Amino acid sequence: MLLKEDIANAYRTIQDEICKGLETADGKGHFVEELWNREGGGGGRTRIIQHGNIIEKGGVNFSAVYGKLPATIKKALQVDQDDFFATGVSIVIHPNHPMVPIIHMNIRYFELSDQVRWFGGGIDLTPHYIIDEDARFFHRHLKSVCDRYNPSFYSEFKTWADNYFFIRHRNETRGIGGIFYDRLNPEKSGLNWTQLFEFSKAVGRSFVPVYSELINRNRYKAVTEAQKQWQYQRRSRYVEFNLVYDAGTKFGLETNGRIESILMSLPPQANWVYDFQPEKGSEEERTLNLLKKGIDWL
Amino acid sequence: MLLKEDIANAYRTIQDEICKGLETADGKGHFVEELWNREGGGGGRTRIIQHGNIIEKGGVNFSAVYGKLPATIKKALQVDQDDFFATGVSIVIHPNHPMVPIIHMNIRYFELSDQVRWFGGGIDLTPHYIIDEDARFFHRHLKSVCDRYNPSFYSEFKTWADNYFFIRHRNETRGIGGIFYDRLNPEKSGLNWTQLFEFSKAVGRSFVPVYSELINRNRYKAVTEAQKQWQYQRRSRYVEFNLVYDAGTKFGLETNGRIESILMSLPPQANWVYDFQPEKGSEEERTLNLLKKGIDWL
Repeated sequence: MLLKEDIANAYRTIQDEICKGLETADGKGHFVEELWNREGGGGGRTRIIQHGNIIEKGGVNFSAVYGKLPATIKKALQVDQDDFFATGVSIVIHPNHPMVPIIHMNIRYFELSDQVRWFGGGIDLTPHYIIDEDARFFHRHLKSVCDRYNPSFYSEFKTWADNYFFIRHRNETRGIGGIFYDRLNPEKSGLNWTQLFEFSKAVGRSFVPVYSELINRNRYKAVTEAQKQWQYQRRSRYVEFNLVYDAGTKFGLETNGRIESILMSLPPQANWVYDFQPEKGSEEERTLNLLKKGIDWL
Repeated sequence: MLLKEDIANAYRTIQDEICKGLETADGKGHFVEELWNREGGGGGRTRIIQHGNIIEKGGVNFSAVYGKLPATIKKALQVDQDDFFATGVSIVIHPNHPMVPIIHMNIRYFELSDQVRWFGGGIDLTPHYIIDEDARFFHRHLKSVCDRYNPSFYSEFKTWADNYFFIRHRNETRGIGGIFYDRLNPEKSGLNWTQLFEFSKAVGRSFVPVYSELINRNRYKAVTEAQKQWQYQRRSRYVEFNLVYDAGTKFGLETNGRIESILMSLPPQANWVYDFQPEKGSEEERTLNLLKKGIDWL
């Protein structure tokens, strides 16, 4: 029998591992923790890292909350139950180096009753400049994690990520996607609860090796002022996605979540330039042209 | 008989006047114009000014569009008609100087039929630092414009602005408000159509004298790096309001409007600092404490 306490405990441990791993990868920045309680029940540990060698601003949040479901949420989730339990780890990292990608990871578990519960989560990458080898490495790694549990997961969850991380008003994807899944249960996944829990933990534990590799591949590359400006512009698209479309952000803002924890995903600096057109044949143009759904990165 | 063509023409003239007035006030920046056509009918003139002495980035948009109303919009507006005509002038100015406020102005006219039509609009101010004399000057000026048409306008529209320009998730107003009104017709306003048109133009024409004064009062004040950083942080709240709450922005994003014209309202640079707490007794703290509804600025 899979207990919600066990899941919360495992997620808490994963948060610890990830914070340690990120501090090691960065070599300078340290996490500062803020504990918080939720009025209706439960609480969390928000951990923020700033001004590192590579990590300019990042957050690794753990929360385990429970209580009564607001009517609006019941409607949005299309569920009938009054009580809920939710736990998860959520990460966004904004690096200072334009060749190191922005990364987002989330693993979560939601329970309304013994019958109605599910796992959700995913990892996706938002490079300021798309580097083909890095994109391939990232997607291959995710595929190998998925394949250990179900050979159809990667392709299904990759498509889900393409559709989810899409900035409709720009007609561009947020980045090169990754995997995204929600409402996974034995019926939908062909895995039993224990296996699903293992999969969720495996996704969480893939974060440090993947991102450390991406940091180390790119951290010593020389950077021009124009590349920094481009980075700030790409970050503004990240802001647009998170404030206009992201379900987690909307959910948090509408349910009076802890604002600073929810909006820790926003970049330290973002720039909007009117009607920016990249130079023909430039790396910036190339990246823009690759921000599309359905690209096979493997 | 008030014709929609006359309104559009007057708004076009007001756009011209405002651009000229802003160039004069700035002394360096010049507007660049982009003409655009809307697939369903009509079009506009987007005018952008960047890198001025004081104006870092600003837009003065005119549009006059018509066509079939999408079902979603009919529902949102709670109207039955199929055809619409809409014209307006819309402005957002982001100054480079933290003591010069961000300003927004909009005048608009919407027509579904001879029976169903209205004026809307307003002006509101978002100071990075609230300066009491400037706030008083701004609100007094708006009151004097309103009072010429209806003695109850100012207080009614001031309250409307307080409620509209409110960042719910921060529990703070976007700035010190101003006036905001919508769906004004003779029945609601006690003014006939010609008077309403005159009021709309008067609001539009109040922009240049008011903002020029606010620029000139503050443009030569010395600025510290800490004040610049605070300015970038205040701008991030502007981004949050516009992307999360602003009806015009949402409308534009959902109806495939011209993205660069809609999002010209976003600042050239915005910063998010995790859990920023202003120093006790500082000007930053004072400003934050004044970002509340219901303050009498007169």
